Amino acid sequence: MAHLLSTGCYLKLSNGGVSYSTPSTQCSKVYPTSLTLRTSRSPLKKLISHGESSHRERPLRRCTVTATTLPISQEAQKTHPSSGFHNSPKESSKPKRVMVIGGDGYCGWATALHLSKQNYEVAIVDSLVRRFFDHQLGLDSLTPISSIHDRIRCWKSLTGKTIELYIGDICDFEFLTETFKSFEPDSVVHFGEQRSAPYSMIDRSRAVFTQNNNVIGTLNVLFAIKEYREECHLVKLGTMGEYGTPNIDIEEGYITITHNGRTDTLPYPKQASSFYHLSKVHDSNNIAFTCKAWGIRATDLNQGVVYGVRTDETEMHEDLCNRFDYDGVFGTALNRFCVQAAVGHPLTVYGKGGQTRGYLDIRDTVQCVELAIANPAQPGEFRVFNQFTEQFSVNDLAALVTKAGEKMGLDVRTISVPNPRVEAEEHYYNAKHTKLIELGLKPHILSDSLLDSLLNVAVQFKDRVDTKQIMPSVSWRKIGAKPKTVSA
Amino acid sequence: MAHLLSTGCYLKLSNGGVSYSTPSTQCSKVYPTSLTLRTSRSPLKKLISHGESSHRERPLRRCTVTATTLPISQEAQKTHPSSGFHNSPKESSKPKRVMVIGGDGYCGWATALHLSKQNYEVAIVDSLVRRFFDHQLGLDSLTPISSIHDRIRCWKSLTGKTIELYIGDICDFEFLTETFKSFEPDSVVHFGEQRSAPYSMIDRSRAVFTQNNNVIGTLNVLFAIKEYREECHLVKLGTMGEYGTPNIDIEEGYITITHNGRTDTLPYPKQASSFYHLSKVHDSNNIAFTCKAWGIRATDLNQGVVYGVRTDETEMHEDLCNRFDYDGVFGTALNRFCVQAAVGHPLTVYGKGGQTRGYLDIRDTVQCVELAIANPAQPGEFRVFNQFTEQFSVNDLAALVTKAGEKMGLDVRTISVPNPRVEAEEHYYNAKHTKLIELGLKPHILSDSLLDSLLNVAVQFKDRVDTKQIMPSVSWRKIGAKPKTVSA
Repeated sequence: MAHLLSTGCYLKLSNGGVSYSTPSTQCSKVYPTSLTLRTSRSPLKKLISHGESSHRERPLRRCTVTATTLPISQEAQKTHPSSGFHNSPKESSKPKRVMVIGGDGYCGWATALHLSKQNYEVAIVDSLVRRFFDHQLGLDSLTPISSIHDRIRCWKSLTGKTIELYIGDICDFEFLTETFKSFEPDSVVHFGEQRSAPYSMIDRSRAVFTQNNNVIGTLNVLFAIKEYREECHLVKLGTMGEYGTPNIDIEEGYITITHNGRTDTLPYPKQASSFYHLSKVHDSNNIAFTCKAWGIRATDLNQGVVYGVRTDETEMHEDLCNRFDYDGVFGTALNRFCVQAAVGHPLTVYGKGGQTRGYLDIRDTVQCVELAIANPAQPGEFRVFNQFTEQFSVNDLAALVTKAGEKMGLDVRTISVPNPRVEAEEHYYNAKHTKLIELGLKPHILSDSLLDSLLNVAVQFKDRVDTKQIMPSVSWRKIGAKPKTVSA
Repeated sequence: MAHLLSTGCYLKLSNGGVSYSTPSTQCSKVYPTSLTLRTSRSPLKKLISHGESSHRERPLRRCTVTATTLPISQEAQKTHPSSGFHNSPKESSKPKRVMVIGGDGYCGWATALHLSKQNYEVAIVDSLVRRFFDHQLGLDSLTPISSIHDRIRCWKSLTGKTIELYIGDICDFEFLTETFKSFEPDSVVHFGEQRSAPYSMIDRSRAVFTQNNNVIGTLNVLFAIKEYREECHLVKLGTMGEYGTPNIDIEEGYITITHNGRTDTLPYPKQASSFYHLSKVHDSNNIAFTCKAWGIRATDLNQGVVYGVRTDETEMHEDLCNRFDYDGVFGTALNRFCVQAAVGHPLTVYGKGGQTRGYLDIRDTVQCVELAIANPAQPGEFRVFNQFTEQFSVNDLAALVTKAGEKMGLDVRTISVPNPRVEAEEHYYNAKHTKLIELGLKPHILSDSLLDSLLNVAVQFKDRVDTKQIMPSVSWRKIGAKPKTVSA
């Protein structure tokens, strides 16, 4: 499976002693770096062994490297607390240590910056496979995004804050073990999954990749917590799509059922509708079991569809800019509508457009994750929050974009296209989402953000739009067993 | 992962023209064979390529072989229907073609023989990994079992009936594709999973293996059906353990919930309690989705704990004898109690012994599968049957074995040992199981079978008992990330 990354790569980069400790609104594009390979590490011996045995082996397999913006001299002196956890500020005055798995992705990057700004010690663990998907499928973010190395160096130069970087695949348990032993997280925020429903429905190979990658990666995280940081709080990104569209109210994770005169509170029944959504259901079930069997503390954030590009932190510099996906594989309907409005393409509503889901601003995603970390689950508790702020149908979104576009002088039309998915196009939908509000979430509202963070961005970068990517390219019914390649 | 088999091996064996067409109670242990490698097959070219490239590649990888008891001359003439399905005898007079995945295992072997006896055309697809597990863990069936090749040849010699054999791993889609194209099944009975809860809880590597093997294998079967035999009926073995032990009645797959004044019928909430049981939940969710999205027809048999060794077919000859597992990894409480009674070891009840589950005789397993095949699900239907006949607590089983043992003059005592699992030891349990009865299942009763098919077998083979294997060896709480090996 060519798109399955099995490499764990742990690079130690340094900015060579050059300091950007003064916060600034400017940071140089030139970051002096040095690269150190620790030859005493056994993984590197394996690398050499693999490299010699066959040219068909991936040369970077087992290469383990870490990246930081600290100079090597400081890096060597850096010490981590050897024991103890810091989930409660009352227990310790040391900053809490948060590992953000998938921290180079859309939600992960914004979250990593936000937590770093809030004085958490942050490490990003990422295989960078999301960027690899773009290369393979011929896609690109509407917004230009910098490399993860430049992003982190820029953040350091602007704020003086270090974000540690571990590049590797959490499906490689040896790599994941190293990250846990090295960083000693108090919380793990796990965004590190293949997160596109259409991607999982391209072909058999991608379906299998998605479920293997997501399920095994999460199993490894659970084992790493059990083995190395048993008090660590797992904050796992799930999806509202796990619930499907039942004809009754959707509760937050559990439902109390009275049946034949007896009553129990049970996991809310799930009806996922893609191999991706199913992988998240599998994760939820696996995590719930380990909470019960091992006393893991976990929060499952069943997130709605996230929109928006800008957060307070990503706005600080163009090298911190977040990605904006509008294509048929990774883009969401709302992003796509904004791009379509910007370039004069009709808004493409799939089918009847009555498909209703929960939505939230990315500024609320980062708030929610922080709230979950600051108020951790108890040992053994499997806590589920529905993480969204408003419900809209696809037709609602089209109407909102049309109205906002007209304010900007855009001529916005809407057409219906055949629905590539298998889903109800008209249905009841009422999902609870009070638990994060109770913890203090102050929601942003789509109607306020639409012009600022979405349509304006789409117009700003409309010359980068690839109109070939706008229409749906993946069919739920036509998915085949044979690998599907993308034509040039 | 040393215990993960990725080889697909498709051998063509022949009995060299020697015929055993007259049913007999004896069949020779000497089966003349020939072995043919089809050098024109591309998989074999890959084999050669792999073999030359590196001595570290597994030499049999991609080797594809089939086995049959037909002479080569007849094999060459044999034709399969090139199109059309035979799920209903009314539609065609040709025998229905049933692929039994995992047909060398405990339930699979008994089922394959039973269906062959009932004049289905049967093919067994099996990687033989179950035998491999025994080798790795130092375990063995209480009953001596013959090789799959000898089993099939013996069956042919006794009945004149051919069972085709495809040796390979269904996680290898190229291999699975060949089996579908070659055999063209009308029904697929899928037993081909790692089926032990304790095995899945030995260490991280086995947990990951179990979920990967079971989930990806089943995904591959679903894709093979969609791509090559879209009318084929999938009969998938699930487990009653998917439901856990809710405080309300367990229904068959679905439950109608009225909530806040609205009503819907939804998948019954699952609360699995091992990585193995979870893998079956994942399978059920994946299959349900493909029924909806692709129109797959599927029956999920949520089977209880199966007991008994003998079926009408396996009793015909010692080379057809089924396996009897009593060890702490693959054995069930009932089998273990019978062995303990036979060798004078106290019956080891885990904890309080109030753990209640559904049970069935293996003669009912084969009946149930036949009923499911003969009454297939409709296209797009995801049908769930709870496949068991009686409920017992562990204490009930101990009492039954004690009583039956005393009839045989055995001195039977019972002790409580610490429960290696994380589970409720006293709980409500009432699971529905009427759908298979409505289709015509005539249950066997444990109290009738206990002496005949269990205790007598245990006494007969008591000299083969390895008492080191009797006690629990796997702990739900102590499972670690490091690979666990078995001491000699």
